[in-house]
Amino acid sequence: MAQQGNGKGTVVRSTIVSKALDGNAPGDPHERELYVYLPPAYDESERNYPSVYCLTGFTGRGKMLLNDNAFTPNLAGRMDRLIASGAVKPMIVVMPDCFTYYGGSQYINSTATGNYEDYFTQEIVPYVDQNFRTVADRSSRAVMGKSSGGYGALVMALRHADQFALVCSTAGDAYFELCYTPDFAKAFRRIKGDPDAFMKRFYATEQHGKDDHHALNIIGMSACYSANGTGFDLPFDLETGAIRNDVWTRWLEHDPVRLVEKYVENLKSLKLLFLDAGTRDEFSLDIGARVLTARLREYEISHIHEEFDDGHMGISYRYDRSLELISQNIS
Amino acid sequence: MAQQGNGKGTVVRSTIVSKALDGNAPGDPHERELYVYLPPAYDESERNYPSVYCLTGFTGRGKMLLNDNAFTPNLAGRMDRLIASGAVKPMIVVMPDCFTYYGGSQYINSTATGNYEDYFTQEIVPYVDQNFRTVADRSSRAVMGKSSGGYGALVMALRHADQFALVCSTAGDAYFELCYTPDFAKAFRRIKGDPDAFMKRFYATEQHGKDDHHALNIIGMSACYSANGTGFDLPFDLETGAIRNDVWTRWLEHDPVRLVEKYVENLKSLKLLFLDAGTRDEFSLDIGARVLTARLREYEISHIHEEFDDGHMGISYRYDRSLELISQNIS
Amino acid sequence: MAQQGNGKGTVVRSTIVSKALDGNAPGDPHERELYVYLPPAYDESERNYPSVYCLTGFTGRGKMLLNDNAFTPNLAGRMDRLIASGAVKPMIVVMPDCFTYYGGSQYINSTATGNYEDYFTQEIVPYVDQNFRTVADRSSRAVMGKSSGGYGALVMALRHADQFALVCSTAGDAYFELCYTPDFAKAFRRIKGDPDAFMKRFYATEQHGKDDHHALNIIGMSACYSANGTGFDLPFDLETGAIRNDVWTRWLEHDPVRLVEKYVENLKSLKLLFLDAGTRDEFSLDIGARVLTARLREYEISHIHEEFDDGHMGISYRYDRSLELISQNIS
Amino acid sequence: MAQQGNGKGTVVRSTIVSKALDGNAPGDPHERELYVYLPPAYDESERNYPSVYCLTGFTGRGKMLLNDNAFTPNLAGRMDRLIASGAVKPMIVVMPDCFTYYGGSQYINSTATGNYEDYFTQEIVPYVDQNFRTVADRSSRAVMGKSSGGYGALVMALRHADQFALVCSTAGDAYFELCYTPDFAKAFRRIKGDPDAFMKRFYATEQHGKDDHHALNIIGMSACYSANGTGFDLPFDLETGAIRNDVWTRWLEHDPVRLVEKYVENLKSLKLLFLDAGTRDEFSLDIGARVLTARLREYEISHIHEEFDDGHMGISYRYDRSLELISQNIS
Repeated sequence: MAQQGNGKGTVVRSTIVSKALDGNAPGDPHERELYVYLPPAYDESERNYPSVYCLTGFTGRGKMLLNDNAFTPNLAGRMDRLIASGAVKPMIVVMPDCFTYYGGSQYINSTATGNYEDYFTQEIVPYVDQNFRTVADRSSRAVMGKSSGGYGALVMALRHADQFALVCSTAGDAYFELCYTPDFAKAFRRIKGDPDAFMKRFYATEQHGKDDHHALNIIGMSACYSANGTGFDLPFDLETGAIRNDVWTRWLEHDPVRLVEKYVENLKSLKLLFLDAGTRDEFSLDIGARVLTARLREYEISHIHEEFDDGHMGISYRYDRSLELISQNIS
Repeated sequence: MAQQGNGKGTVVRSTIVSKALDGNAPGDPHERELYVYLPPAYDESERNYPSVYCLTGFTGRGKMLLNDNAFTPNLAGRMDRLIASGAVKPMIVVMPDCFTYYGGSQYINSTATGNYEDYFTQEIVPYVDQNFRTVADRSSRAVMGKSSGGYGALVMALRHADQFALVCSTAGDAYFELCYTPDFAKAFRRIKGDPDAFMKRFYATEQHGKDDHHALNIIGMSACYSANGTGFDLPFDLETGAIRNDVWTRWLEHDPVRLVEKYVENLKSLKLLFLDAGTRDEFSLDIGARVLTARLREYEISHIHEEFDDGHMGISYRYDRSLELISQNIS
Repeated sequence: MAQQGNGKGTVVRSTIVSKALDGNAPGDPHERELYVYLPPAYDESERNYPSVYCLTGFTGRGKMLLNDNAFTPNLAGRMDRLIASGAVKPMIVVMPDCFTYYGGSQYINSTATGNYEDYFTQEIVPYVDQNFRTVADRSSRAVMGKSSGGYGALVMALRHADQFALVCSTAGDAYFELCYTPDFAKAFRRIKGDPDAFMKRFYATEQHGKDDHHALNIIGMSACYSANGTGFDLPFDLETGAIRNDVWTRWLEHDPVRLVEKYVENLKSLKLLFLDAGTRDEFSLDIGARVLTARLREYEISHIHEEFDDGHMGISYRYDRSLELISQNIS
Repeated sequence: MAQQGNGKGTVVRSTIVSKALDGNAPGDPHERELYVYLPPAYDESERNYPSVYCLTGFTGRGKMLLNDNAFTPNLAGRMDRLIASGAVKPMIVVMPDCFTYYGGSQYINSTATGNYEDYFTQEIVPYVDQNFRTVADRSSRAVMGKSSGGYGALVMALRHADQFALVCSTAGDAYFELCYTPDFAKAFRRIKGDPDAFMKRFYATEQHGKDDHHALNIIGMSACYSANGTGFDLPFDLETGAIRNDVWTRWLEHDPVRLVEKYVENLKSLKLLFLDAGTRDEFSLDIGARVLTARLREYEISHIHEEFDDGHMGISYRYDRSLELISQNIS
């Protein structure tokens, strides 16, 4: 099949007016951008393509996957390159925006942030299938991401295997004991007893230190995992910093490691389940992946597990590996 | 004057085929993108606007000023916000691409990188004036930037005051003794005696450590300041790491601190010369700005000098200050 | 009372042949040094003095409290200075050695390290009372320390209040969820599945990195808190890094926060219970102290709680505060 | 020859009342401690031993070489071990105190600190030869040290080869352009225009941050290299941070790299000249050693040069290598 002259795909920006997000608690917009990469020859034929949904990490949104960097291609450039080299076949890549006031949504429903799991599975996926020439079948639909995006991909593996038969999680949040608790102390100190005041200070300036991000991370996870009406409970006592076991238990219910046993059949139905993480991951997500892998083995769930020599940041080059595996296994 | 419905400006992407860059040594493209921000009401009137050229730092290019970030507006969003609040009047903002194989050009001519000073002053500026409704006069034309972009702005103040009457440099490279030499040891160790081999290794992977960037920085500056034909001389001996005084002298000839005395009249002709830097700048550019300020005082050259409590990275919020001062002083 | 000419106390080095430590599992010496500081005028009168036992942190031993440093007095010099200024009254200060092959003993009995709690309470204290002119009464006997030494002091408060009526813990290990688990991942990676092999590598060279110390710390705590015969169980799975709940439960039984309820009467009997920690403590021991404080309040146990602006290291200047409080409250 | 029962040497503490230091500007004591290690069998024979002078780094003094550490032997323990294993023959090791109010003396004379070069060469060496059974000959006398102690050793090689025929410098200060200038900015910011006020603040508390040590380091070197009467000149302008070339020139006159040409005959007369440094030395002293080595080669001065994989701190295990080489080459 002939490629376009320049061998470059096209990025289409759409806007979705979401019902799922309408009236969300923090007042975030329910009209959202959606960026979709169409492979180079898309306009020259009428064929349908497999689709890959790429979920961003915490504080990210789809558009950021298209950011320019001189030494690392953005996701569109990466696809162009992988398709040109033959490493990956032509596929549609979808970049949703599930950002919230609290920094992210973990791609799940929460009364404190909004119904992002519904938004993603009930609105974005159908929208893409209706507006682009996808192969609208789970065997031809993959979801991938890193960090909180990897977590989101795991959520789809667990609860939405009917929609996604291929799932790749790079350094996805897992085994919460080791990935979140080490930040509790820094968050506790920074929040100073008042998370709402912290959020206001955070948005009052562009100048943020490392500890601001630790605090935002824990607040964001609280808004996702331990919502309390339109607010949320922090997993630690605001006076002492002691872990609140009642809240922590609610967090753990969202830990992929613990969700495996509830969704064994879904996980077994996958055509591809890929987990990887860096052996120096600052959030210990290499251990998260190992623990999850052990759980998958226990239930005899097929999967691929890899480690690489790096930390948690600056690892978008690992998208190559996920995309290659998806390309090899997708229909 | 009525604004557009959403109060948002427009970004126009153009392509310039450069004569100045044609046949450059590293074989970088001479066809370059140019991004231009047009203020909200641009299309609704026929008036002309002042223009501001924003130069990116090392490893940057114009497009990156438009990258998306959830907590910091990109340059277009920043302009929208500043215009909306009345802090800045409607202006055209130009974002050139002067990136090279070696990570940057410092916006000067070099046989090793290409004639980027010519490209910028003789091709980009005329192109903008011809294709957009600018006030094509030095008093209505400003240049700003941070880090190597601040350096570029200073270059314009020194040698192209006939084109730019307003110049803002945030943490611009200056006083080379303190801003570059601390990285020599790290670069020396990483380059391991062969800068060409280093460059090949660098481009062979997306996985770069901190020391890779130190090495690239010193190689890039060598390509700009101490070109040797189509190659360049490093400022240190490849066996011992000792500073090569002959090469170092050539670097110093490019130090803004030393160039002041050659261009006193140009500098005196400026309507605005603004220098700022963070008091924790990792490249000691707060000291660079202080030394430069002292030199300007010596020659009785008007300028404004400010310091702020931050380091070298994550300081794009300081664009606000430059843009406000430009807005107040531009015709 | 006349002071010695130079106003300096004397340090006496003794050797104790311990029965409690005889035959300890790792084969550490059961003949141990004991350093005792006698106040300036000790030899000029026949009076008896209160005694203070200062316990070192992990990897420490009594002798190290006498190390020389140009800017920080060692414990003897500190006492000289505090006595000379009148901030502290003349007291005997005892510096025991409870170091083990695994880096420390936490001042408790363990089949993997030895019976250090017995050694301290049944051998060192009687030895001191017999060999030096102490006031051999709990009201005249204090114990203090920082980090693991603070933990040791808390152990004495909990289980040996009959011997020590004054206890000061600076950044003492407490609230194990936050002080130990953040190091699990680093220890797991460094130990590489074989703690014995790690220990051999550790002692085979003097060249140790930060991660070696993280690994030693977790191994050391395991030897103290979760001994298994003459060996020990690590709190995480050697293949995955997952926390072993059965082992972790045994650790928690040693957490001061959890021991309070068992020893309420002992704690209530104290004349001084002082807790402090730095607000940037890298092991979150400020939170440890806050949680412990809350538990003490719950049981209406008198105590003093302070925070100071510092981290976990380089805080021996805080000994001043403990010594002052001891001096004010000791008989 | 029979060794003492325990195979342990003896440490003798002496006091020297120095004429050279009498009346020194900062008012530091001119009565100083001297620690001397005598090998195990010293008291059992009447033979004479070679002597090795070990000079401490900045902020150090001889006594600190005897500090206790659980994982690294102090210098006496190191000698015991090296002698016991046969790696090193029995030698006397001398540990002088050349500390000053400004953190050190670099073992040179200065009107701002005192005449420490005289003190060392004219008072300590004769004292040792008179009071201990040394072989009082340059061929049997070595000097070694790391960091500023390595610098001191090089000073002896350059100017006192008549006294010391064996010299070992580990990470000795050399090539001042790279070892000192990177700290200028931090020192400038911390000193805030008033070095005397800084010194008072420094001594007013035991709580010192990293930047305090950068500032002390630059002040200390100024007191040694650019004394001005009883005071000193800093190498940078107190307002701008610009390097003061007049002062910097005076510093460079003390750079071993530049002193080689003045003392070629002395250097050629040495029986051992050993230089080593870590390849990650934070003060770039690996480059210092390389530049010095190149200078020595230029003048055909015999020497041994080694690099090791480490930084600047925690490298006392490298004493082993110096001591072995000394043992092999000393008479």
